[in-house]
Amino acid sequence: MEQEVKKIFMLKVDEQDTNRIEDTVVREYPLTILLNNDEVITLLCTPSNLDYLAAGFLFSEGLIKEKSQIKNIIIDHENGLAKIETWKDSQMEGGIPSKRFIASSGGRITSLPSDITVQTDREITSQIEISADEIFLLMDKFVLSSRIFKNTGGVHSAALCDKRDLLLFREDIGRHNAIDKVFGECLLKDVNTNERIIMTSGRVSSEILLKVAKRNVPLLISKSAPTDMGIQLSQDFGITLAGFVRGRRMNVYTHGWRVIKGLK
Amino acid sequence: MEQEVKKIFMLKVDEQDTNRIEDTVVREYPLTILLNNDEVITLLCTPSNLDYLAAGFLFSEGLIKEKSQIKNIIIDHENGLAKIETWKDSQMEGGIPSKRFIASSGGRITSLPSDITVQTDREITSQIEISADEIFLLMDKFVLSSRIFKNTGGVHSAALCDKRDLLLFREDIGRHNAIDKVFGECLLKDVNTNERIIMTSGRVSSEILLKVAKRNVPLLISKSAPTDMGIQLSQDFGITLAGFVRGRRMNVYTHGWRVIKGLK
Repeated sequence: MEQEVKKIFMLKVDEQDTNRIEDTVVREYPLTILLNNDEVITLLCTPSNLDYLAAGFLFSEGLIKEKSQIKNIIIDHENGLAKIETWKDSQMEGGIPSKRFIASSGGRITSLPSDITVQTDREITSQIEISADEIFLLMDKFVLSSRIFKNTGGVHSAALCDKRDLLLFREDIGRHNAIDKVFGECLLKDVNTNERIIMTSGRVSSEILLKVAKRNVPLLISKSAPTDMGIQLSQDFGITLAGFVRGRRMNVYTHGWRVIKGLK
Repeated sequence: MEQEVKKIFMLKVDEQDTNRIEDTVVREYPLTILLNNDEVITLLCTPSNLDYLAAGFLFSEGLIKEKSQIKNIIIDHENGLAKIETWKDSQMEGGIPSKRFIASSGGRITSLPSDITVQTDREITSQIEISADEIFLLMDKFVLSSRIFKNTGGVHSAALCDKRDLLLFREDIGRHNAIDKVFGECLLKDVNTNERIIMTSGRVSSEILLKVAKRNVPLLISKSAPTDMGIQLSQDFGITLAGFVRGRRMNVYTHGWRVIKGLK
């Protein structure tokens, strides 16, 4: 098991003093994902739940469609490798795409335009409702859960929730990785995501929406800002998007009926 | 000229009220970079200074070494293309690398391990000194400069500074893109970076250090946290790294002698 954080010495400086103290920083770990011995990518990540990360990444990229395709996952900590093998007859047609979209802050999308087309055909129609109070309480729990962040200030977190509680919670230096860890766990443990909620500490860009839409999640709640494409895709996918959820305030950008009906 | 932000309508919700209001969000723009007609990458970015972004990206990736290699840069706004042409005799040996490292939160590195090896051979020996007060004042100016962030809360910023002032300041939804814009401008305008300072709003990971080291910048100042690899590379490259510079406090992680000697 790799350590998620590392102790270092640094100088703490303020207007009065300079002191050499021990501090904790988040680790950055290169993980190379191999799919049937073909190298897919190297992610820089927080070294925890690497099996979930690898499975979630391959799912987000469309290289794995369902759990039953996976024969085994081996995490080789010594060499920083996640080796995923699929059953022969379930291998992807066409192999691994060579062309990659690389996004603003951590994105990595193989085929943005076609993905969007595919996805928008399939609008999420869940009739789940949630009250503003329920969202505020979920965000309180979400913020309190961040164990590594409290120590280091250096990570993002993501969670799968129902209306009352956080069901899965994962952290990573990358906001995409944190969400891939959550969805990878859902994939490997057969956790249903259909009538549920994804929370993220990070900004909501188009790539985040593509991930969330692939798992049919009707509600996406962020502590941070969305981009225009994030909002547009939320609208198209039928996803309720709430951003800047802080204290007892938030912005609801799309499909507000799921929240508004839930307002007391 | 593309707009950097977009007006949208959303529901502002607090414990008392729900109001439909107009708000400003940051745009996410796909820019495909072509080097001599070969597609290198598609970045999701803030659509400003796209020539600097394209040049800075190619420089960071090692695909362009100096300004004299560039024959011309054409930004095709309609199709989201940055077309860079180099002089025939200055083309890279081996062409564009097909294997890419994709990093935690926005990284994109073609060859991390070899880059690190190359870079650590060349330690930055600048004897520049700066006082803690000077760093605090620079951060004040840096934070005040963020025009898009004030409107949208959704972007990162980067700046090239001397000890007194911000010389260049750029914003982008991606922290890597913001730095690439600054360095692209330095490349195209022959701005010296040797005895200067880079400021960033974002986390300091290994990829950020690789960019900064390539331009021989001796001081890197961040509002946010570093990773362990960011600290390690700062140490190896001879770069002074200050993080969590907020108010009148900061952490100095490496080569503190440049700050300490400058303390009054």
